[in-house]
Amino acid sequence: MSAADLIAVLMARHLHWDLQTPDDPHNDHVIFSKGHASPLYYAMLHAAGVIDEQELRTYRQLDSRLEGHPTPRMPPTDVATGSLGQGLPIGVGIALSGKDLEQLPYRVWVLCGDSEMAEGSIWEAFDYAGWRGLDNLTAIIDVNRLGQTRETMLGHDLQAYADRATAFGWHPIVVDGHDVRAIDEAYDEAANVSGKPTVIIARTLKGKGVKAVEDQPGKHGKPLDDAASAVQELGGLRDLQVDVQRPDTSQEPHRFSSTHADRPSYEVGTDGSTREAYGAALAWLGATREDLVALDGEVSNSTHADQFAKAQPERYFEMFIAEQQMAAAAVGLGTCGWTAFASTFGAFWARAYDFVRMAAVSRADLRLCGSHAGVAIGADGPSQMALEDMASLRAIQGSAVLHPSDANQVTCLMEDIADRSGISYLRVLRGKTTVRTAPDERVHVGGSRTVRQSDDDNVTLISCGVTVDEAVKAADLLAAQGITARVIDCYSVKPIDEDAVRRAAADTKAIITVEDHRAEGGLGDAVLEALAESEARPVVRKLAVGIMPTSGTPEELMHAAGIDAEAVTAAARSLCEA
Amino acid sequence: MSAADLIAVLMARHLHWDLQTPDDPHNDHVIFSKGHASPLYYAMLHAAGVIDEQELRTYRQLDSRLEGHPTPRMPPTDVATGSLGQGLPIGVGIALSGKDLEQLPYRVWVLCGDSEMAEGSIWEAFDYAGWRGLDNLTAIIDVNRLGQTRETMLGHDLQAYADRATAFGWHPIVVDGHDVRAIDEAYDEAANVSGKPTVIIARTLKGKGVKAVEDQPGKHGKPLDDAASAVQELGGLRDLQVDVQRPDTSQEPHRFSSTHADRPSYEVGTDGSTREAYGAALAWLGATREDLVALDGEVSNSTHADQFAKAQPERYFEMFIAEQQMAAAAVGLGTCGWTAFASTFGAFWARAYDFVRMAAVSRADLRLCGSHAGVAIGADGPSQMALEDMASLRAIQGSAVLHPSDANQVTCLMEDIADRSGISYLRVLRGKTTVRTAPDERVHVGGSRTVRQSDDDNVTLISCGVTVDEAVKAADLLAAQGITARVIDCYSVKPIDEDAVRRAAADTKAIITVEDHRAEGGLGDAVLEALAESEARPVVRKLAVGIMPTSGTPEELMHAAGIDAEAVTAAARSLCEA
Repeated sequence: MSAADLIAVLMARHLHWDLQTPDDPHNDHVIFSKGHASPLYYAMLHAAGVIDEQELRTYRQLDSRLEGHPTPRMPPTDVATGSLGQGLPIGVGIALSGKDLEQLPYRVWVLCGDSEMAEGSIWEAFDYAGWRGLDNLTAIIDVNRLGQTRETMLGHDLQAYADRATAFGWHPIVVDGHDVRAIDEAYDEAANVSGKPTVIIARTLKGKGVKAVEDQPGKHGKPLDDAASAVQELGGLRDLQVDVQRPDTSQEPHRFSSTHADRPSYEVGTDGSTREAYGAALAWLGATREDLVALDGEVSNSTHADQFAKAQPERYFEMFIAEQQMAAAAVGLGTCGWTAFASTFGAFWARAYDFVRMAAVSRADLRLCGSHAGVAIGADGPSQMALEDMASLRAIQGSAVLHPSDANQVTCLMEDIADRSGISYLRVLRGKTTVRTAPDERVHVGGSRTVRQSDDDNVTLISCGVTVDEAVKAADLLAAQGITARVIDCYSVKPIDEDAVRRAAADTKAIITVEDHRAEGGLGDAVLEALAESEARPVVRKLAVGIMPTSGTPEELMHAAGIDAEAVTAAARSLCEA
Repeated sequence: MSAADLIAVLMARHLHWDLQTPDDPHNDHVIFSKGHASPLYYAMLHAAGVIDEQELRTYRQLDSRLEGHPTPRMPPTDVATGSLGQGLPIGVGIALSGKDLEQLPYRVWVLCGDSEMAEGSIWEAFDYAGWRGLDNLTAIIDVNRLGQTRETMLGHDLQAYADRATAFGWHPIVVDGHDVRAIDEAYDEAANVSGKPTVIIARTLKGKGVKAVEDQPGKHGKPLDDAASAVQELGGLRDLQVDVQRPDTSQEPHRFSSTHADRPSYEVGTDGSTREAYGAALAWLGATREDLVALDGEVSNSTHADQFAKAQPERYFEMFIAEQQMAAAAVGLGTCGWTAFASTFGAFWARAYDFVRMAAVSRADLRLCGSHAGVAIGADGPSQMALEDMASLRAIQGSAVLHPSDANQVTCLMEDIADRSGISYLRVLRGKTTVRTAPDERVHVGGSRTVRQSDDDNVTLISCGVTVDEAVKAADLLAAQGITARVIDCYSVKPIDEDAVRRAAADTKAIITVEDHRAEGGLGDAVLEALAESEARPVVRKLAVGIMPTSGTPEELMHAAGIDAEAVTAAARSLCEA
C-alpha cells in the first residue's frame, strides 16, 4: 500500500510494456526488488490485464503462478526476488544490456524498499551504475520508514538517502510518494536525466489509506483484521484497468558480429594451465559467438578473462571487487539473451552465494568460473583458497560442478556450458597440470575419463583437478608394490558419471576419492551418492582437506592436507591389505 | 609501500598497544582489512619488537606465523583478512564492544584498500558505524588508485570518497598519505571527533619511494625486479625500532551482572516451536551468562531473538538487513570475549557465507541460528526457504550443524554451543513439531535420539527437524503393513552420531534418510559418509528436496518434494520388498 501510488503513476503514464509479447526486447523492465510487495505487483499485472480476477485469488497457493514473492513463472517477471537487495543489482545488469549492448531505448524501473538499503549489495549497485552512467535506470525507493520489527536506521530522513545517492553519482529526486502529480513530474525528470541513473526517494506511509494500519509498527506481513472495511476506506471495490503504453519498436537491437578464431588445443604430455585455458576458451568462444559476454571481479589477469577483454572489449565488463553485483549483472544480462560467463577466485564466489541461490530460483542460465582452487595455490594462504565451493554450489538446484584436470578439458566443457541451462560452475587451478586429454577427445558435462584401467584392478582412485596428477603418481607407486589401481578423472563432479563409478565399485575392492576441497559436499560425497543404491558398495575412503591450511608451497600443503600421491598410496595399501 | 607512512605515524605516535600482553583488553586494535599488505603488517610488528629478523624471513613459508595474509596465528592479530571488505565490518564489531559493552577507551584502527571500497560490505559497515556513532573507530583508506589490473572506479578522486563518508554519517579527513605531519594531525583530529566514526582518506602512490614501480600499473602482487636497488632508494638497510605507547589501563572493562531465569522446558507430546525455543533459550542463557550477546538481522520477531532483546536490551544488537555486517560484528564481538549468537532466516545466511568461511580462518567462535528451514515454511516461497544451508555450513572447517526436531532439544543444544569452539549452526523451523525429548533428557552436539527401535527392525528411517514427525508417521503406516522401522532423529547433522548410524546399518536391511534440504551435502550425505568405511553398508536411499519449490501449504510442499510420510513409506516398502 505504501508504494501503490508510485506504481499506479508509473503504469499509467511512464511504463512502456507490450504485455502481449512479454519477451519483446523493446519492453521496459520492472523489478520489484522488495519482493514482499508481491500483492502490489500482481495487482499491477491485474490492472494491466495480464492476470484475471480468478487467478488473482490463487495468490500463495500451490500451482499458482502468483507465488509469495515474484518469480519468472509469472511473465513478464524477469527474475525472482524476495532476498532483499538483489533486484537493483540485477536491474543494473539489464540496464547495461540496454545501454551498451542492445542499445535500445527501454528503461529499467526498480522498486526498492527502504529496509533493503542496509544491504551492501544495494551500494554495489549504486557504485557501479553511477560509474557507468546508466541513465536508463531508475530506482524508486519506497521510504515507508518501517521495517519488519522497527523503524529503519534513516526513518523518514529523505535527504540522507539523497545525499548518499548524490555521492554515488546518481541523480536523486525527493518526492511525496502519495502526491500523484509530484510522482508524475519525478518520472518525467528521471526520463530526461542524461549520463546518470536516477533515484526517486519517495516519502510514503506503510499501510497508506487504511487508518487501522497506516504508519503503524507491528503490521509487517500481517493480513488486515478487517479487510472489508479497509476496502471501503480505500474507495470500495473497483475494477481498475490501465492501458499501458507500447514500447518504441522502431529500432532493432544492436548485435555484434562473429569472427573466426582457432579452437585452443594443447599437446598431450605437456604442462598446461586450466585457468589460462579458461581465458583462451572464452576468447575463442567469444569470437565465434556474438551472444557471449564476460564479467570479472578485478582479477582478470589471474583468471585470464583478460584474454576475452582484449579480444572483445565491448562485451567485457570489469565488475571490480563486488562479487554480488557481478553475479547479479550476469543474471540481468542473461535475461536479455546474453550468454554470460563470470569469473573470480573460487573462494570469492562465496561472497555471492545468496545471489547464485536466487539465480536458480530465477531459472537463470549462469556460468561461473572459480580459479585458484584448493590448497594447491600455495603461499597466499587460506583466505584465497576455494575449499567449500564445490559443496555450496553442488547444493544449488540444477547446477553443474565441473573441475577439469587439464587444459583440453576446459575447452570442451566451456563449449558445453555455453549452451547449458541453469547454473554451471567451472573450477580451475592456479598451477599447471599434465595434459592427458587429447585435443580431439570430447569430454562433457556428466562424463569422466578413465585414465588407467586393467582387467584386474585392485583399487580405484577417483580424482579431479590437481589430484588427478597425484592419483596417477600413486598408481605408479602402487604398481611397483604389486597393487593395480584404476584411475578415474571425475572432472564432472555434478552430475557425476554414475556408470563409471558403479563399474569401478563392481570391479575393485575399494575406492579412494581424493580432492583438493573439504571432505563435505565435494567429490567424495558425490561418489558415495552414486553408490548409495548400487549393487556393489565397496569401502570408500575419502581423502580431502581436513586441516586449516596455512602458507607453504603447493607440494607442502597437499602433503599436509593428506591429498598427495603419498597419502593416496598409503590409503590404497591399507585398504588392499585390510 | 603506499601505506607505510600511514602506519609508521600511527605506530610511533597514536597507537596504544601493550605487545607483551596482546590479550590485554585495554589495547588498541589494528586490522589490515587489505590483508595483502601483510609485508607492511609484519614489518610493523618487527619494528615493534614482536617479530625478529629471523622470523621475518619466514614470510609465506610452511609453519611460519607470517602467512600470505594475516591470521590470528600471529598475535596480536584479531582476525584473518585477505577476503576484501571484511576487516572494516569486523572492526565495527570490536568498536561496538569497546564503546557500548566493555566501555573502555581503546581505539580501533582499520587500514582499508581503495579497491575494497567496491565491496558492499564496506558500506554496510559505514552505514552501521555511522548510525551507532562509533567515535572509537578510525578507518584509513590507502587511496593508491591502482587495483590488481587497472585503476579503481574513483582513482585519486579523494573528495568522492569524502562525500560518501559524510553521507553515511562519518567524519572524513582528506590527507596526503606521504606527508607525515599531515598524517599526524589527521590522527589527532580523529581522536578528538565525538559521536562519529572517522575515515582518513589518504592520497598515496602504490610502490611509493621506488621509481621502478611507483604509481605504475601492472605491479600488483609482484616481487621487485631489483630489490637491492629499491632498498638503496628507500634509504638503505636500517633496523628501525618503534616504542609503541602503552594503553591506559586505569579502567576495568564493564561487566554485566547475571540474574536468575528458569530453564525453558516443554511437555512431551505437546506441539512446540523450535524457533520460539531458540528465543526462549537465548533469553534464559542471557540471564545466567553475562558474557552472552545476541544479534539479529531485522527479523527478531520471526527468529524470536526478540525475547533476548526484551530481557537484555544492552546486549542485543539490531543489525538491520545486513547479514555480512551481522556476521562480522559477531566475529568482532567474539574477539573481545563475548559469546555471540546471531540469527536470521537460514536462507539469508547464504548472504554472509564468505564471512563465515573467513570466520573459520580467524578461528572465531560463532553461533548462527537460521530459522525458516526448508519447504515446510509454506506459502512465502523458495526465496525464503533454507535449502542449501546445511551443505554450505557443513563444509566449513570445524563446524557443527544442528537441526533439532523439538523445542527441548533446542535448549540443550544452545547450552552446548554457547561453550563450543568454532562455527556452530542451529537450524530451526517456522512451524511446530511434536515434543518427543523429555525436558530432563540431555541431547548434545554429536548425538542422536533413537525414537523407535525393536530387535527385529527391517529398515531405518534417519531424519532431522520437521522430517522426524514424518518418519514417525511413516513408521506407523509401515507397522500396519508388517514392516518394522527404526526411527533415528539425527539432530546433530555434523558431527553425526556415527555409532547410531552404523548400528542401524548392521541391524537393518536398508536405510532411508529424509530431510527438508537439498540432496547434496546435508543429512543424507552425512549418513553416507558415516557408512563409507563401516562393515555394514546397506542400501541408502536419500529423500530430499529435488524440485524447485513454489508457494503452497507446508503439507503440500513436503508432499511435492517427496519428503513426507507417504514418500518415506513408499521408499521403505520398495526397499524392503526389493
